[in-house]
Amino acid sequence: MSEHQPTIFDKILAFLDIGPLADGHTLVIPKERKAHLHQLSDESAAAVGRVLPRLCRAVMRATGATDYNVLQNNGAAAHQVVMHVHFHIIPKFGDEGLGVHWPARKLADADARDLLARMRQALDTDGK
Amino acid sequence: MSEHQPTIFDKILAFLDIGPLADGHTLVIPKERKAHLHQLSDESAAAVGRVLPRLCRAVMRATGATDYNVLQNNGAAAHQVVMHVHFHIIPKFGDEGLGVHWPARKLADADARDLLARMRQALDTDGK
Repeated sequence: MSEHQPTIFDKILAFLDIGPLADGHTLVIPKERKAHLHQLSDESAAAVGRVLPRLCRAVMRATGATDYNVLQNNGAAAHQVVMHVHFHIIPKFGDEGLGVHWPARKLADADARDLLARMRQALDTDGK
Repeated sequence: MSEHQPTIFDKILAFLDIGPLADGHTLVIPKERKAHLHQLSDESAAAVGRVLPRLCRAVMRATGATDYNVLQNNGAAAHQVVMHVHFHIIPKFGDEGLGVHWPARKLADADARDLLARMRQALDTDGK
């Protein structure tokens, strides 16, 4: 008789993306069926977070990559295609991998104070 | 006398990006000082994962965003500028937010089998 031994993979699955941006492009998903990260339970989100470092190490060792991006998209406008939470691990080799456009601007003090007040209130009343 | 009550923020910090791509662009970092995700302890990575859903909800409620990207860059070639692990939460409003270039190709069966074998071996010998 064998008892079930809990493992780090009880709450998550990891597999290769069938449309890779680079060799070793890997997906990590919670088994919990939610479309978007803000809908996910804390426990599933922690489980995904917990396995990321070792999966990144495995991708690096399997491919020789030294640089990589971890990306998780929410909503069609943010490039989400499959509506189940998934984290991409995407090795970067020269031009191969994730292309990023970064139109940064400056954060104004007044905007920052206003945003922070609203975010603190949202956190304080989260789930209420 | 007050005792320290453990909170979800013991292991992490969250703050606004001073060079936002969109209103509400937020950073989440582990207090553990590591440059890259593959160097981070499981515990710190789990703590970051655990707070992401509630922080995404707070960003959405503070800004009205419905779509957003979570991005974590590792290495200069992968657009990392500050060498301390950080996760971006970036709201997407029309053209505002993260720009992504997605040059997907097809995963060949033989490549997949070869990659998976190397990744399984890397996981089995992780830390050894």
